Amino acid sequence: MKFCSQCGASVTLRVPAGDNLPRHVCDACETIHYLNPKVVAGCILEWQDRVLLCRRAIEPRYGLWTLPAGFMENGESALAAAAREALEEAHAESENLRLYGVYSLLHVSQVYLMFQGRLKDGYARPGEESLEVRLCAETEIPWDQIAFTVVHETLRQYFAERRTGQFHHHLGDIIREADQRFRIHRHY
Amino acid sequence: MKFCSQCGASVTLRVPAGDNLPRHVCDACETIHYLNPKVVAGCILEWQDRVLLCRRAIEPRYGLWTLPAGFMENGESALAAAAREALEEAHAESENLRLYGVYSLLHVSQVYLMFQGRLKDGYARPGEESLEVRLCAETEIPWDQIAFTVVHETLRQYFAERRTGQFHHHLGDIIREADQRFRIHRHY
Repeated sequence: MKFCSQCGASVTLRVPAGDNLPRHVCDACETIHYLNPKVVAGCILEWQDRVLLCRRAIEPRYGLWTLPAGFMENGESALAAAAREALEEAHAESENLRLYGVYSLLHVSQVYLMFQGRLKDGYARPGEESLEVRLCAETEIPWDQIAFTVVHETLRQYFAERRTGQFHHHLGDIIREADQRFRIHRHY
Repeated sequence: MKFCSQCGASVTLRVPAGDNLPRHVCDACETIHYLNPKVVAGCILEWQDRVLLCRRAIEPRYGLWTLPAGFMENGESALAAAAREALEEAHAESENLRLYGVYSLLHVSQVYLMFQGRLKDGYARPGEESLEVRLCAETEIPWDQIAFTVVHETLRQYFAERRTGQFHHHLGDIIREADQRFRIHRHY
């Protein structure tokens, strides 16, 4: 952020009075511009012993596999956002969505809300942002071609629990270390 | 948003190519500025049969009661944000935080992540944003002086379940109707 979105003047990064973190503050109108994490809503959609994966037709991670997920919009509910992403990326209708995992991605300031639900009628086909969609059993998951650590972690937890027949909620943080590797802090 | 935060030129609200919602697009550098929901992290902190409430020393809802809660910061985890808010608003240290409820507030584009945990040592005193803090048993909750619908709903669910001894996760949407009243859509 270089300019004030309210008046167009330049902004300075400084700690406003009564605050304890630097913010972008307008040099002219003094508006304080806060930058906050964005919410990504996504879902594991189940059909028999399979889950729906999409192969990305967009950057980043073009060509790699992911769960339907994307940025939540203003005025939308988290559940509606997850369902919309499945529709947009895979023409997939979802049923019985429940929140499964919440992951904070500190390096990109994103919060993933990952739902679990049923793929209605077992039907899916690629949306504009997908090259291909696939219903994968656990043995068919392309583990070394998953687009994002958070998706890998969600699928890993899901299949580990699926074998036990008991699903639990998960809360985790994903942290990028200095060597660029990701560390996963699993709170539960 | 009236000006581009990247170059300072004016912005126009229009649907970018390949998108389906109007966005603020810069007339000069063509940067697309997305506006997304903000995350609020908060907590129910328990001490014996009581929970910690704070009376607001700031607008909006000055003088009304709330749970510790506030905007999540960039680079922070959801759990850390909830713990930080309890510290800032009530000098309260929290233990064993677990996600309890997730609420989408459509009218203000906020997602509340409400945790449940233990107030360490039963100790709290007002922070700068609180006039007063109190440990309230169910019968002592000032139900008609609660600052926000989402806090009222969280406390209501919590005490209803507390009587049964079984806590479950909750997902809900809070919608402001045309008559300005709030409707709560409880998914579960």
